[in-house]
Amino acid sequence: MSSTKQKLSFASDYMEGAHPEILRRLLETNMEQTAGYGLDAYSESARKKIRAACQADDAEIFFLIGGTQANAVVIDALLRSYQGVIAAETGHISVHEAGAIEFGGHKVLTLAHQAGKITAAQIESALTAYREDANREHMVMPGMVYLSQPTEYGALYSLAELEAISAVCRAGGIPLYLDGARLAYALACPANDVTLADIARLADVFYIGGTKCGALFGEAVVFPKRNTVPHFFSIVKQHGALLAKSRIAGLQFDTLFTSHLYEKGGETALLAADRIRSALREKDYSLAYDAPTNQIFLVLDEAQKARLSKQVEMGFWENLADGKTVMRIATSWATQDEDVDRLIALL
Amino acid sequence: MSSTKQKLSFASDYMEGAHPEILRRLLETNMEQTAGYGLDAYSESARKKIRAACQADDAEIFFLIGGTQANAVVIDALLRSYQGVIAAETGHISVHEAGAIEFGGHKVLTLAHQAGKITAAQIESALTAYREDANREHMVMPGMVYLSQPTEYGALYSLAELEAISAVCRAGGIPLYLDGARLAYALACPANDVTLADIARLADVFYIGGTKCGALFGEAVVFPKRNTVPHFFSIVKQHGALLAKSRIAGLQFDTLFTSHLYEKGGETALLAADRIRSALREKDYSLAYDAPTNQIFLVLDEAQKARLSKQVEMGFWENLADGKTVMRIATSWATQDEDVDRLIALL
Amino acid sequence: MSSTKQKLSFASDYMEGAHPEILRRLLETNMEQTAGYGLDAYSESARKKIRAACQADDAEIFFLIGGTQANAVVIDALLRSYQGVIAAETGHISVHEAGAIEFGGHKVLTLAHQAGKITAAQIESALTAYREDANREHMVMPGMVYLSQPTEYGALYSLAELEAISAVCRAGGIPLYLDGARLAYALACPANDVTLADIARLADVFYIGGTKCGALFGEAVVFPKRNTVPHFFSIVKQHGALLAKSRIAGLQFDTLFTSHLYEKGGETALLAADRIRSALREKDYSLAYDAPTNQIFLVLDEAQKARLSKQVEMGFWENLADGKTVMRIATSWATQDEDVDRLIALL
Amino acid sequence: MSSTKQKLSFASDYMEGAHPEILRRLLETNMEQTAGYGLDAYSESARKKIRAACQADDAEIFFLIGGTQANAVVIDALLRSYQGVIAAETGHISVHEAGAIEFGGHKVLTLAHQAGKITAAQIESALTAYREDANREHMVMPGMVYLSQPTEYGALYSLAELEAISAVCRAGGIPLYLDGARLAYALACPANDVTLADIARLADVFYIGGTKCGALFGEAVVFPKRNTVPHFFSIVKQHGALLAKSRIAGLQFDTLFTSHLYEKGGETALLAADRIRSALREKDYSLAYDAPTNQIFLVLDEAQKARLSKQVEMGFWENLADGKTVMRIATSWATQDEDVDRLIALL
Repeated sequence: MSSTKQKLSFASDYMEGAHPEILRRLLETNMEQTAGYGLDAYSESARKKIRAACQADDAEIFFLIGGTQANAVVIDALLRSYQGVIAAETGHISVHEAGAIEFGGHKVLTLAHQAGKITAAQIESALTAYREDANREHMVMPGMVYLSQPTEYGALYSLAELEAISAVCRAGGIPLYLDGARLAYALACPANDVTLADIARLADVFYIGGTKCGALFGEAVVFPKRNTVPHFFSIVKQHGALLAKSRIAGLQFDTLFTSHLYEKGGETALLAADRIRSALREKDYSLAYDAPTNQIFLVLDEAQKARLSKQVEMGFWENLADGKTVMRIATSWATQDEDVDRLIALL
Repeated sequence: MSSTKQKLSFASDYMEGAHPEILRRLLETNMEQTAGYGLDAYSESARKKIRAACQADDAEIFFLIGGTQANAVVIDALLRSYQGVIAAETGHISVHEAGAIEFGGHKVLTLAHQAGKITAAQIESALTAYREDANREHMVMPGMVYLSQPTEYGALYSLAELEAISAVCRAGGIPLYLDGARLAYALACPANDVTLADIARLADVFYIGGTKCGALFGEAVVFPKRNTVPHFFSIVKQHGALLAKSRIAGLQFDTLFTSHLYEKGGETALLAADRIRSALREKDYSLAYDAPTNQIFLVLDEAQKARLSKQVEMGFWENLADGKTVMRIATSWATQDEDVDRLIALL
Repeated sequence: MSSTKQKLSFASDYMEGAHPEILRRLLETNMEQTAGYGLDAYSESARKKIRAACQADDAEIFFLIGGTQANAVVIDALLRSYQGVIAAETGHISVHEAGAIEFGGHKVLTLAHQAGKITAAQIESALTAYREDANREHMVMPGMVYLSQPTEYGALYSLAELEAISAVCRAGGIPLYLDGARLAYALACPANDVTLADIARLADVFYIGGTKCGALFGEAVVFPKRNTVPHFFSIVKQHGALLAKSRIAGLQFDTLFTSHLYEKGGETALLAADRIRSALREKDYSLAYDAPTNQIFLVLDEAQKARLSKQVEMGFWENLADGKTVMRIATSWATQDEDVDRLIALL
Repeated sequence: MSSTKQKLSFASDYMEGAHPEILRRLLETNMEQTAGYGLDAYSESARKKIRAACQADDAEIFFLIGGTQANAVVIDALLRSYQGVIAAETGHISVHEAGAIEFGGHKVLTLAHQAGKITAAQIESALTAYREDANREHMVMPGMVYLSQPTEYGALYSLAELEAISAVCRAGGIPLYLDGARLAYALACPANDVTLADIARLADVFYIGGTKCGALFGEAVVFPKRNTVPHFFSIVKQHGALLAKSRIAGLQFDTLFTSHLYEKGGETALLAADRIRSALREKDYSLAYDAPTNQIFLVLDEAQKARLSKQVEMGFWENLADGKTVMRIATSWATQDEDVDRLIALL
């Protein structure tokens, strides 16, 4: 449990605790007595700040604990029993949630992806195919759309893409849900042109990720419009997702949305990622995806992989047909400049 | 958000943050990089200490986030689809979990209670009734038993009672599960004769409550025998109950099980509760249940209720037929002596 | 497989095949080619006749296969995930459906019964208790009411009782569902004052039982108002309850609702039951419930039970505290006069 | 409702009632009194005959009502909550069951298909990929394999293919389930080399389709080995799939497995299909798939489609990229020689 590490780790963006400012405030408020279950003043304060950041005065906001949980609760709350959720075949809900969506009774209707993204045209075509199928009542009705920003492959939806998808959803009468597990790293990305306010305008529900963006845990589920899901509180409770000492989550988001701490954490990660990407390009490494956010997907041959793995913890991503391997490097709000220096020196 | 409170609050045992020692260690370890999902060294250290405290060397231990979640995950993991769980009609899973057990597809098979307790004889009789019913295959099979220690009414199972229930369960071939949301307040109670080791010997699974016993959040689910539920990790994940930064839960339990902090928190609460109970008896208040732990159920007439409620936050429990009201006072690890003094002065 | 029976059987009302007229028409139409899944002309004809019988021109009608299935599909279709269904503690859905309602994710919220009935006052009180409970969002919301006419104990709701219950449901904004597994035996009962049209006016959905009332199988689910449940067809399919050759169900109901065959079957059963009840009264047998329909609940001492059981198959109902046993005799559309004569001679 | 049809119909294989011999016996036994829920003598007799046909003396056999229902019940019974079922992406459970498998909480893990078939190599590779994935505990575990014989595209698994798949499943410790909705048309196909006994030897559970093969309704679920799924009866009941008058299903299968009626029905369909296929080949029609069973998939250009559709009801299958359409012609046990003559004349 020593804090001296021989080996560099860029394995993921949830290896450290939390922004020190969060811990400072937890300590400062520790012995206060507050109501639970979301009724405390810290949660209320966090909600106000998030509403302001989203330019969505009527937004209803709930603090859940983790991403899979947020996805399962929101999707189950929005769908009727006979409906499914459209997602990229690589979407977190499609692959890495151990069947949490199906546990709630719903099918994930997958579409082919481009770096984790799906398009308005694909969604429209899926909706049309369902509508025109003579056997549609024997099939799962598409009842909502799930996107991630950034995607699991680190890619970003542009504002134009998001507007097109939102328009298709609204024309089709189905809600759009955006998974923002790593949203800080989208918002801080130079290539990004989508603001929180855009998301609040274009999506029917989304979550602002805390766990991977500087909190001990926690995801802020935002419904821009009031009463999108009646009795959402009970649904949260029924899913075992209600935090008794809600202030712990509320205070973390209150802190992250004070003095732009959330975006600043994103900037730290992006500066680090951009430095690493530049170094990689200089040294002729090849990258697997066009991923401009905090995740970098390196293609390594066996020798490179063996050499680097000795000194740097990376995440395994996939084996390629040519025998090479894609490894993931993730930076975060907590990435230290000197660790980036050491990594670049090793490349 | 000021910490100066005019009004005393004894409304519940989860109003404060966490044992200061927990916060101290969170701060101390904050920038360490650790693996997630339960694989970190703090979780492992906590497991070792809990195994020792339970005298159960083979115990498998998982850290979940809240009580309803722990109940839903454990019960769903232990039951086959056609089975239900036996519980007191007042059990938390029967009444206050918004249908979390039914969401997992299972019926709660309720038995009449005595201060929240059920008996070995009642359970045996339910198992026999099922076994002898000619239509049993058209009915829900009892597949496990759920108890709380202490109960929702603050009562305690004695060792003899727990041994009898365990024997009935083992004879019937069904697991026994014990909900220890407030276990610290049972363990520290002078009237208690059941140790953690007894529970580990008699139950097939139980959880050691953190949320109400000094942690920010967290419940330690303990399976005394190895491999009681294969792939429990995936079940936890499927329920959205897996904490990415597991060290935050692990470190809390590591702290609580260092230097007997868990039991000491219980003692603080029990000393306070006993002082309040003595004062109530002296002043001829009547108590609704024989509850020797950290919860006190006062019977108040309208005038008493009106007077006390002005100065003390209590929990509403129930209206009685004679117009009186049962109110709950809860002490906790965080209860301050001077607040007890002030309360007693007000009685 | 011989049709000569030594022993009389009054064990249940689903021991024979179907009204001969149903078989005649199955034979007559056997080689016709029709569309499936409810789109055939026989199903459509049956719907028209049922609409007429119910005086409900807009009614949507679906033919399902059995009672537990109908209950599970209808209840799952009407409730939101966080809602439960109010029922008598003795209701079929509470006891004898092997957890089919919970499999769909819903809690059965039970009320004490009187011969299987619950009252408007009980329901109102349950709704009020939920509405006034400060913790209601942590509890299962009552989302509908389930009744059986006649009840599992053979009792009948009067028109006044049904009107009161319907009024409470409408005031509370929740639908009323009536399980008519044995509805023919209610409609034909001299003590009954509730017509199909009354039920269609007072309930939001109900089913007209076929299986126990003269069909090979089948239950006609009736929604008096159009579009009560959008996409009910898909919900039926999702539950595995869609009959491919729907005409087999449709033609049966078309036959039962031609020339009042449905009611006539009920009359046969009621005449038989009334004759048996008279004989029992004359011979000083005691009856367990005030059950005026096709089920008779005899209280037998050990000697009586031993003697009768040798010559008559009856259904076991329950053991009484005084050592006596309640046995059930059921008549049906198929009961033969000579069997009733033989039974009476044996009493 | 006239039985004179102007237009030929080859739209599906479930347009008529049942083999006349089934109706004859329903009529003959109609007023017999039998036990329900599978305990009647006709069901028992049918089980014996099916065991003999399958050369599986220990087989447990349950009669369910329809194919989607059988799939949902069997799959839910075999999988643990965290497991999914491997199937072709075109499998009935993947596409045309309105989410019945997901309603039971399980993911369908799809593989690419060849005329509806998947291979042992594909399955092995999926099992290996799961086993070797470092994140497998965050994913859905493959818990069984689902095949259809013939497939939805009319193709057949050869004995060698089935043996290879069975071997992979057994090596992987997961059960193999075979959906035999149209099994009669596989068994009677000249190209087929897989017997019922082979299936009983190679699969862990399968169903012998009645609905599409000459019964009014009904599918016989066969577990070759005793106690494969304890309490399967309760699972059937919980799914609303239990037929009260079980003899109606039992007697149908008893009839189909008397004097090889089941296979004979298949032969009628195959003779008709082969005549049609010959005629199509002669007239240079092109067929979409290598489908040797009772389904024929014609590729039609717009003119052909318009012309034929006027006189023959066919099933729409899919639109091709080149503007042509695939239409399905299905023969059955009920196909009349003169209808085949008329169809051929129209081609």
